[in-house]
Amino acid sequence: MDLVALMAEKRRAIEAALSRYLPDESHRLTKAMRYSLFAGGKRLRPILSLLSYEAVGGNNPEEIMPVACSLELVHTFTLIHDDLPSMDDDDFRRGKPSSHKTFGEGMAVLAGDALMIDGMGLMARSTASSRLVKRAISEFARTLGSAGVTMGQADDLYGEGRNPKHLRHIHLRKTALFIAFSVKAGALIGGANEELLNKLYRAGVLAGMGFQVCDDIMDVICSREELGKTPGKDEDSLKLTYPAVYGLERSRRISQSYADRSVEILTSLGPEWERLAALTDYLVRRRR
Amino acid sequence: MDLVALMAEKRRAIEAALSRYLPDESHRLTKAMRYSLFAGGKRLRPILSLLSYEAVGGNNPEEIMPVACSLELVHTFTLIHDDLPSMDDDDFRRGKPSSHKTFGEGMAVLAGDALMIDGMGLMARSTASSRLVKRAISEFARTLGSAGVTMGQADDLYGEGRNPKHLRHIHLRKTALFIAFSVKAGALIGGANEELLNKLYRAGVLAGMGFQVCDDIMDVICSREELGKTPGKDEDSLKLTYPAVYGLERSRRISQSYADRSVEILTSLGPEWERLAALTDYLVRRRR
Repeated sequence: MDLVALMAEKRRAIEAALSRYLPDESHRLTKAMRYSLFAGGKRLRPILSLLSYEAVGGNNPEEIMPVACSLELVHTFTLIHDDLPSMDDDDFRRGKPSSHKTFGEGMAVLAGDALMIDGMGLMARSTASSRLVKRAISEFARTLGSAGVTMGQADDLYGEGRNPKHLRHIHLRKTALFIAFSVKAGALIGGANEELLNKLYRAGVLAGMGFQVCDDIMDVICSREELGKTPGKDEDSLKLTYPAVYGLERSRRISQSYADRSVEILTSLGPEWERLAALTDYLVRRRR
Repeated sequence: MDLVALMAEKRRAIEAALSRYLPDESHRLTKAMRYSLFAGGKRLRPILSLLSYEAVGGNNPEEIMPVACSLELVHTFTLIHDDLPSMDDDDFRRGKPSSHKTFGEGMAVLAGDALMIDGMGLMARSTASSRLVKRAISEFARTLGSAGVTMGQADDLYGEGRNPKHLRHIHLRKTALFIAFSVKAGALIGGANEELLNKLYRAGVLAGMGFQVCDDIMDVICSREELGKTPGKDEDSLKLTYPAVYGLERSRRISQSYADRSVEILTSLGPEWERLAALTDYLVRRRR
């Protein structure tokens, strides 16, 4: 299996669907939404949900594409709000000036809001059974809201990230739960049973933790050009990262160990999960 | 019918449900969410949806309360973000320091985000048929997102509100569509047919316009103590309002005319819509 080619193929399909779903640039709000959405992301979350959906035998784009693209809209919302001056105050994202540098702070808040809201609405456009779509929306909101990603960002903002005890919790909430939901959502929309969904969620949490630790590592070793955002930012702000707490080598082992445990679960599910397992492994080996 | 007593009764039921649905104050994020949510709003949108649900014969709180309360969570999200320094920069809301003055700007952004997300998730908890709940979520997102409330706020931010031609559009997007959805949502969850839903939506748009013009009028004539937010703010910022364009007396007539047309539609639907009609009329006569 050529993982790189597979990811490129899925990425193209997702880009095309995103462009269809998003309003055109005739308004400055939608222009700001498109600016951040088409700044060159990996489309990791949509790809995870697609591979998971296909692994349980799903083959109807009208069922899965609204869900997959919804994940990307909402992910982009979190990036825009995280970069705001009142949050991480980051001037660059994916190698381009961040939203508030380009459109002003108020419009960046609104572009994030609209991506979040339109993203939720897009998920509701899936043609899968209403029961499954309703459940996906409900679990998505739980993943993102006051007990999930947003709480993780609030802890981060308030400096909990300087406490090693809280580092794992913040990584879990800010990244791993979202990755886990992405993996689970595809199989959920494809009609998987509870036992399989639980295993996929567990595999997704582990993959997400490995991915975030890898992100911490790259932030230490990469230049801005490679990374597309301001590197060493986490060091400057005294925000703790895995390399800062455990050193670079041990962080690499932690990241790989998370991925290995995720791959182990996925492999145990049968050959149809091979592609998702390969992607999980890739996530901690990537260099950007 | 004693409208004031009816509203007080519904308001109490909604307050109790809101408190059950919301997480406790153990985290500073959830504390910020509760601070704004329990700052003493009229609970207008939930009450509209409740009355509409009951008018079509609905009588199961498990069906309607999650939807009704969802409207209030999301309405509170729009207030918090509208007050941000990068938006209207308002230091007071409902007579108390606004969220960013109390919790800081970053936390106010996040409290708004979490109310929005939790609100969407709460709507998905309605026990009405999945098909109806999915549709309600989809229409709610369309009401709020890049073609609705958020676009209205973006136009307002960018100064379109200084152009009389755009004033009606901004009022429509920022307020009237949300009110209209609130009226429609109750009947939708209660199983109403398309013809009735369309009439209710039309009545809701008219009621929402009347309500917003009345809001403009109160902003001109009330002191801060009565209003709970900074009065004359709209004048200072050169933002156009109905009184600024049409004068106070003509604005009153416009507001009442909107309400009259709304009441006319509701009255034509039969005696079970009498309570909603009375509330619509009250909305343009209120003094705060």
